[in-house]
Amino acid sequence: METIPASSIVDVLRKSENSIILPHVQADGDALCSSLALAMALKRLNNNAILYLEEEIPRVYSFLPGRDLIKVYSNEVVSPGTVIAVDTGDLERLGKRISMFRDARITVNIDHHPTNTYFAGINYVLPGSSAVGEIIYGLIGMMGVKLDKDISTCLYVAIATDTGGFRYANTTSRTHEIVADLVNAGVNISEISSKIFDSISLGKLKLMGAAINSLELLDGGRIAFITITEKTIRVAGASEDECEGIVNLGKNLQGVEIAVLFREKNGEVKVSLRSNSDADVSIIAGKYGGGGHKNAAGCVVKGELEYVKRRIEADLKA
Amino acid sequence: METIPASSIVDVLRKSENSIILPHVQADGDALCSSLALAMALKRLNNNAILYLEEEIPRVYSFLPGRDLIKVYSNEVVSPGTVIAVDTGDLERLGKRISMFRDARITVNIDHHPTNTYFAGINYVLPGSSAVGEIIYGLIGMMGVKLDKDISTCLYVAIATDTGGFRYANTTSRTHEIVADLVNAGVNISEISSKIFDSISLGKLKLMGAAINSLELLDGGRIAFITITEKTIRVAGASEDECEGIVNLGKNLQGVEIAVLFREKNGEVKVSLRSNSDADVSIIAGKYGGGGHKNAAGCVVKGELEYVKRRIEADLKA
Repeated sequence: METIPASSIVDVLRKSENSIILPHVQADGDALCSSLALAMALKRLNNNAILYLEEEIPRVYSFLPGRDLIKVYSNEVVSPGTVIAVDTGDLERLGKRISMFRDARITVNIDHHPTNTYFAGINYVLPGSSAVGEIIYGLIGMMGVKLDKDISTCLYVAIATDTGGFRYANTTSRTHEIVADLVNAGVNISEISSKIFDSISLGKLKLMGAAINSLELLDGGRIAFITITEKTIRVAGASEDECEGIVNLGKNLQGVEIAVLFREKNGEVKVSLRSNSDADVSIIAGKYGGGGHKNAAGCVVKGELEYVKRRIEADLKA
Repeated sequence: METIPASSIVDVLRKSENSIILPHVQADGDALCSSLALAMALKRLNNNAILYLEEEIPRVYSFLPGRDLIKVYSNEVVSPGTVIAVDTGDLERLGKRISMFRDARITVNIDHHPTNTYFAGINYVLPGSSAVGEIIYGLIGMMGVKLDKDISTCLYVAIATDTGGFRYANTTSRTHEIVADLVNAGVNISEISSKIFDSISLGKLKLMGAAINSLELLDGGRIAFITITEKTIRVAGASEDECEGIVNLGKNLQGVEIAVLFREKNGEVKVSLRSNSDADVSIIAGKYGGGGHKNAAGCVVKGELEYVKRRIEADLKA
């Protein structure tokens, strides 16, 4: 469980040829864009780096440079020299592409998750970094590759998305120092920010509308309930994963201390609880076999929707 | 129309006593928080600085430090020595407090608006700064006052709000360099960000819900119409100014090139147009005596709501 010194990993990367870069399954902004930036930098050192994704590139990132460096995995036979897992906490997060990793001569693991399992031959894990983008930024500098607009744009997207637009607690002064350097190298901040933060699907927008319509305020506005049924999702034309973040519509409401999202599915109710106050919502989730922490917890409760809502209401007022 | 050298304004500020600081009317995050940071810094130099606001402090900023340095103006007689206008493009933006400015022995104007009218005895106007917060940051450093958590928090809010969370085109590498320094001085990024960016009123949330319900997509999803009537606002319990930004619900929708908000009021329709593409919406606004620029324009059209919508639709499809 040891991280290799920076100079050693730089040496490995500089000497590698025909590298394959593997971001985790369902690649998010950091996984995808850190990988792209690394691939572009390696290209400049005459290393034919290629990204293999588990799925198609998410539409929101389709504007990114370096699309010619990306392939979607399809059981094709490749004989990789060096395989580099990026933003991947453990081997399972490589999905079907684990076979490529196993076949490789040299395996590398570049990550920032504190839970990383050090699964590669060479592990470079820096949990203090807000995003793997910060780590790749450092490596690119040490490899002697000069930042250009394309590389900087990818690193900017990696860092901006993993820090929630520089708003999460993982954002540090070093994050801002790095971004200052990326901006100097030509990132178009307003154009990129609009593409990665503002874009919303019709399904998600309609789901938000339905969620707002369902809002119930209890206990003088201290508690907010939002309800999403299977029908809500169908009518909105939304996908299941677009329920992500909907509970925050209640959490962000002025005066609300506890927000709850009730999500009906197959005769069960998925309950997501958020607390803005000292109230510990993990205690309530725990009562129903769920878990989480003080400010964010969840559980699944069997039973009819209204029944579950009244039980949780009673718990919250207890 | 000349900006005083930095060393001279620092000299004026250092020597001033009993300063009065005036952010512009309806003070926003930058005006209010830059003023607060300046007042705190002057306090440390034994200058009894006080802020006079035109209105009560906006609720969203009620968490800020330094509340004891703020007074709301009420025609009281004060004999100011030095009066400092902050983030104020012209004298009208001082509202009723213009009398304090006129009575002052020394008048100072610290601003970043390129349209500033240089209305004071001493003018320090730096249009290249994303926020006046950047200018005050520089002055505090030159005054030899060390950043503490309170001053840094105010400067952070000033810069974060005026750059839309570091997303607008006014954000520069210097912006990020300054923020890195503020974070080192103790800003709690996640706590502050949540307070200034996520908090939403019940009226605004319901207005958003109603706006989403009103959404019409035309021309295969290329055009989005959102409609807000007087009744919509009343039922939502929203205020007029909470219509601000509602047009972006359409603009941000995937596939939308032109978004239009129709706002019915007193038998007229206020039309706000936004373009994500090369289409120049200021041409349409101009047809009705309105104006703006290529990507954002507006006009007021007399007539019944449906009639106005069909006219604008015809214009957009022409």
